[in-house]
Amino acid sequence: MRRSIATVCVSGTLDDKLTAAAAAGFDGIELFENDLVVSPRSPDEIRTRCADLGLSIDLYQPFRDFEAVPPAQLRANLERAERKFDVMAALGVDTVLVCSSVSPDAVDDDELAASQLSMLADRAAGRGMRIAYEALAWGRHVSTWDHSWRIVQRADHPALGLCLDSFHVLSRSAELDGIADITPGKIFFLQLADAPNLSMDVLQWSRHHRLFPGQGAFDLPRFVDLVLAAGYDGPLSLEVFNDVFRQSDPARTAVDAMRSLIALEDRLSVRGLPSAPQLAGLSFTEFAVDGRSGPSLRVALRGLGFTHTGQHRTKPVELWEQAACRVVLNSAVTEPGAAAINAFAITSEDPQRSLRRAEALLAPAHPNVREPGEAELAAITAPDGTSVFITRPDDDWRSDFLPTGVPVAAGAGLLSTDHLGLAQPFDHFDEAGLFYHSVLDLDHLATGEYAAPFGLMRSRGVANPDRTVRLALTVALLRRGEWAPAVADPQHVAFRTGDIVATASALSLARLPVPDNYYADLAARFALPDDFVATLRRHGILYDRDSSGGELLHLYTPVLGGRVFFEIVERRGGYDLFGEANAPVRMAAQRHRRLSG
Amino acid sequence: MRRSIATVCVSGTLDDKLTAAAAAGFDGIELFENDLVVSPRSPDEIRTRCADLGLSIDLYQPFRDFEAVPPAQLRANLERAERKFDVMAALGVDTVLVCSSVSPDAVDDDELAASQLSMLADRAAGRGMRIAYEALAWGRHVSTWDHSWRIVQRADHPALGLCLDSFHVLSRSAELDGIADITPGKIFFLQLADAPNLSMDVLQWSRHHRLFPGQGAFDLPRFVDLVLAAGYDGPLSLEVFNDVFRQSDPARTAVDAMRSLIALEDRLSVRGLPSAPQLAGLSFTEFAVDGRSGPSLRVALRGLGFTHTGQHRTKPVELWEQAACRVVLNSAVTEPGAAAINAFAITSEDPQRSLRRAEALLAPAHPNVREPGEAELAAITAPDGTSVFITRPDDDWRSDFLPTGVPVAAGAGLLSTDHLGLAQPFDHFDEAGLFYHSVLDLDHLATGEYAAPFGLMRSRGVANPDRTVRLALTVALLRRGEWAPAVADPQHVAFRTGDIVATASALSLARLPVPDNYYADLAARFALPDDFVATLRRHGILYDRDSSGGELLHLYTPVLGGRVFFEIVERRGGYDLFGEANAPVRMAAQRHRRLSG
Repeated sequence: MRRSIATVCVSGTLDDKLTAAAAAGFDGIELFENDLVVSPRSPDEIRTRCADLGLSIDLYQPFRDFEAVPPAQLRANLERAERKFDVMAALGVDTVLVCSSVSPDAVDDDELAASQLSMLADRAAGRGMRIAYEALAWGRHVSTWDHSWRIVQRADHPALGLCLDSFHVLSRSAELDGIADITPGKIFFLQLADAPNLSMDVLQWSRHHRLFPGQGAFDLPRFVDLVLAAGYDGPLSLEVFNDVFRQSDPARTAVDAMRSLIALEDRLSVRGLPSAPQLAGLSFTEFAVDGRSGPSLRVALRGLGFTHTGQHRTKPVELWEQAACRVVLNSAVTEPGAAAINAFAITSEDPQRSLRRAEALLAPAHPNVREPGEAELAAITAPDGTSVFITRPDDDWRSDFLPTGVPVAAGAGLLSTDHLGLAQPFDHFDEAGLFYHSVLDLDHLATGEYAAPFGLMRSRGVANPDRTVRLALTVALLRRGEWAPAVADPQHVAFRTGDIVATASALSLARLPVPDNYYADLAARFALPDDFVATLRRHGILYDRDSSGGELLHLYTPVLGGRVFFEIVERRGGYDLFGEANAPVRMAAQRHRRLSG
Repeated sequence: MRRSIATVCVSGTLDDKLTAAAAAGFDGIELFENDLVVSPRSPDEIRTRCADLGLSIDLYQPFRDFEAVPPAQLRANLERAERKFDVMAALGVDTVLVCSSVSPDAVDDDELAASQLSMLADRAAGRGMRIAYEALAWGRHVSTWDHSWRIVQRADHPALGLCLDSFHVLSRSAELDGIADITPGKIFFLQLADAPNLSMDVLQWSRHHRLFPGQGAFDLPRFVDLVLAAGYDGPLSLEVFNDVFRQSDPARTAVDAMRSLIALEDRLSVRGLPSAPQLAGLSFTEFAVDGRSGPSLRVALRGLGFTHTGQHRTKPVELWEQAACRVVLNSAVTEPGAAAINAFAITSEDPQRSLRRAEALLAPAHPNVREPGEAELAAITAPDGTSVFITRPDDDWRSDFLPTGVPVAAGAGLLSTDHLGLAQPFDHFDEAGLFYHSVLDLDHLATGEYAAPFGLMRSRGVANPDRTVRLALTVALLRRGEWAPAVADPQHVAFRTGDIVATASALSLARLPVPDNYYADLAARFALPDDFVATLRRHGILYDRDSSGGELLHLYTPVLGGRVFFEIVERRGGYDLFGEANAPVRMAAQRHRRLSG
C-alpha cells in the first residue's frame, strides 16, 4: 500500500517537511492549508517540487464548516470552495477533506447536510475532483463514522465518499464492525493516528497528544483490517497532531513515522518483515568510563559482589561478572556526552534475523562490530544513541575476553539483569517506545506519570513475553531547563536477586539512605507487619505492591561516576512494574547525597 | 494577613522548598505529605528547620478518601488518621486538610459523611487538632463549597470546619455570594490558585495548569473579599499545581508567588502599595549592538526613515529618532547572551512612585542609572533580564545626548512605538505577565495559542488603558530543543503609522516577502475587494480583522543582526490585538530568507 504523511505531523516550513517526508521514503503527503499559505512557492511550484521528490499530493485539507447551513451561508461556502478547487487544480490534487461542521450556525438536519454536500460534490466532479467527508469526534451534529456514512449514503453522489480517521473513530469507542460493510469504493481516504488513553476533552486530546501507530493505546490493526475489508486501497496516511513532534527535527520524526507504518503493515500482514526472533535476556551492559568514573564504578561493582573476570583481547575493555549478570567497562569511548550506559546487549535466538528486521524497520544497524578473529557482534543504534548489541545464545562474545585469573568473589546472590532504566532524550521518548516495540518485538507495559521532586515524569516499560528482557524508559514531562539538578535523570542497571535481605547483608558498599518518614508512611499505606518494616528499614529496602498483590523489594546505590546507579530487585508474586512509586524517594535521596557529599 | 505557600508549588526537595519560601518572605507553608515522605529530616527536625527559617507549618495535607464509607473502611481510615496525627504532633501543625472523597466506595449520604467527619474531629480535638474539610471539584459526591458547608453544619463540631480552595470553587462557576454568610470561624483555611480559562477535564486542569493569583482568568479579589467578609483571618495560602513551576528554579518561583499575594492584597486594600502612576508611552527601545549587528541595524533604521539625532555625552550610545519613535543603539553592553532588546523605557507621570511600587512588588530596581550630570534614570529588571527604564513626561533623558547635527530625514510617517514583541524565556512567561500586570499596572489582554512552523506558541498581550504602552509576550508551548531554527523566537519593535501604504511607499529597505498564497487565502477568508488585496500584495502588507471589525495592516522587516526585526502597523477601528494570526507567515518567511540569504 502507498504511505502518506500529513504535513502537520512534522516541524518546519513546507520545504523542511517535504524534504523530510521524501527522505524517509513516503510516497505522498496530505497538504495542510496553513503550510501552503505560508510557503513562498506557488501551487505549481509545490506540485513540481513534490514530483521531483517522488511525492504525490494525496489530499488537500482541511475545508471546514461547510454543510447543513442556511442558504446565504451555503452560497458563500460554495464560492469559498471554488477558490480552494482552483488551488487544488494547480497542485494536481483531486481529493479534498471536508470535516463535519463545528459551527454554531449548522443545523441538525441530515437531509440538508446530504443535499448540500451533494451540491459540493457536483462542483467537484465538474473539475475531476471528489469530496471526502469526515466526522470530527467533536462535530456539532455529526461526530461518529456511522452518522457520516448515513449522510454519504443519503447523498448518493459518486464524487462524495468518506474519510475515516482512526482518532475520531477510536476516541469515541464506537461500534466498529459495520466499517467492513461500507460499500466498496466509498472510503475515499484513511487517516491514521494512535493516542494514549487520557481522560481529557477530546479536542485537546486530538490536537496535542496524537501519536504514530504503535505508540499509543488504540487497536489500529483491527481498525485498519476493517477498512481494508471494505475494499479500501488508497494510501495509509498519518495525521498526527503532537506538541513534541511539531517542535522536533523533522527528519527524525519522519523516520519515526515511517517506522510506525512499516510495523503496522507487518501486523496486518500487508507486508512481511523478518519475524522477531525470541529473546533470552540482557547479556551485558556496557558503560563508557574515564579516569574519573572508572574507579568509582569498579569500587561499586566489587561492593556488589562482582569479579573482574575478563580483559578484552585488543581494547581497554573490562568484563565484570556475577552469575548471569555482566557489566562491561569501556575506556575506549571518549566522545563527550556519551550516554552513561553506552551500550547494552540482548541475547537473540537468531541475531542475523534480528538485524534484518531492524534494518527493515529503519534502525541504524552495524552488522560487524568486531576486529578480525573476534566474535561477530551485530549492533543497532537506539533513538538515544545507545548501541544495542544482539548476541548469540552461546554467549560467544565472551571469548573475546582473556581471563584475568582474579579469584571469583563470593558474590551477593545477584542472578541476572532484571532491567535497565533508560532516561530518554525529550524529543525521542515515544520514538524509543515504538523502536523497542517494533524492532525487538517488546510489549508495551503500562505508561504512567508521576510527580517527582524536580518535576513531573513519564514512564513506559517494555518487555519480552517471559520478562527476561525489560527496559524502563523515562522522560521529564517538560524538557528540562537550567534548573535541573545533576541527579535529575540518571540511568541505571537493576540486578535481580532471589532474596534481597540476604543480598543486602552481603553487600559491601554504601547504599542510598532511605528516610525514616518513608517507612512510617509505608506502614500506614500498606498495613505491613512491624517486623517486616523493621527489616526493610534496616537494609534500606524500598517496597511496592501492585493491584494483584505482587510485591517488589528493591534498593539503590547512590549515583556513581556522574550519571549512573545500580539497583537490586526482588520480585514476588508476579509484580510486573519497576517500582516507579518509589522513584521520588530515590531522586530526593540522590540529591541530598550529592549536596552533602 | 499571614502569607503561606504549599510545598507543592515549587521544585526540589523539601530543603530546596523551605529555603526558597523563607527567602521570598513567606510566613508559613502547607506541608505536602510527599515532600515529608522523601525527606531525610524527621518531623521534629523539619519543625526546627522551619522555625529557624521563620516559617510556621500551617497545614498538613492531604488526607484523602475519608468520609461516607462502610464501617470496616471507617475503622481503617481512623487508624490511618491516628498515624497522621502522630506526624502532625511532631511537626507542630494543628490543621489537617481532608478532601472530599473520590473513592468508588464512598456513599452518597450527607448524614453519614457528617457523622464520620464528626468522629474524626473528636479524635483530632483530643490532640488539640482540627479538620479542614474541602470539596474537590471532582469529588465523587461532594464537589461544591456549599455542599461541603452543609455537611460541616450538620456535623456541628467545633474541630470541624471548611477549607476553601479558589480553584475548586471558581472552576465550577458556582454561586459565590453565600460564602460571605458562612458562620464566622468556620472557614479554617483558605487556599488560593488562579487558572487560565481552558476547556479541559477539571482534574487535568487543576493538576497541571494552576497559576498564581493574577496570572489567570479567575476573579480572585471578589472571592477573597467574600471569604474575608465571613470573618476569615487565617493565612492567604497558595496551592498551585503547575508543570512549569514544578520544574523551575524554586527561588525564582517563590518570589513570583510572593509577588502574586502582594498584588492581590493591594487589590483587596488589605495592604496598600504606592499606586501605579499613569503611563504615557514607550519612550525608547535600546538594542545592545556589536560590530556585526550595529551596521545592519543602522542601515535598517535609515531605511525606515530614522535620523541619527544624538550621541550620548559619555558612552558609545546613539539616539535615532522619527517623530515620537526613538531607538537607542548601545555598543557598551558586551555580555554574551544579552537580549536582542537590551532595555526599553516607559514614560511615567511619577517615575519615583513607579519605582517604589516596583520595589514593594519585589522587582529588582536600580534608582539611579546615571553618571553625574546626567538625567536621573530609574530602572527595574524584568523577568527576562531586560531593563525597564522609567522616564519622565518631559523626556529629560534626551538631554544626555549631544545633537549630531545630521540633517533630519524626511521620515516615513512613523508616529510612535506601537508595541514591543518580547519572546520570553520558557520558565518565566507567566511570571512576566504578572510582573507587568502588577508592577506597571498593565491590563492583561487576551491570551492565546497558535500553531506556527516550529511548534505551538502561546501569546499574551499587556497594555495600559489608553493603549500608549503595549507589550506582546510570547513563548513556545514546550521549551525548545536542539531543532530550533535561529529565527524561531526573535524580538521586535513595532512602530505605528497613520497610513501604512504611504509609509510603505516611503521605505527604502528590504521588507519581508509575503507569499502570494497568503493573499489568495486572505481574499477567500475575508471576502476583500480585489484592488485592496492588490495594494496589500504590492507592498507586502499583511492583514487581520477582529470580531468587531477592527483591522490591522502591518508589515515586517527580515530578522536583522541575529535576533531582532521591526514591524510597522496601522490600526483601524479599535483593533486591539497584535496580528498573531499572521505570525506563522512571518516565521516561515524569516526562515526562508535566512536559508536563501
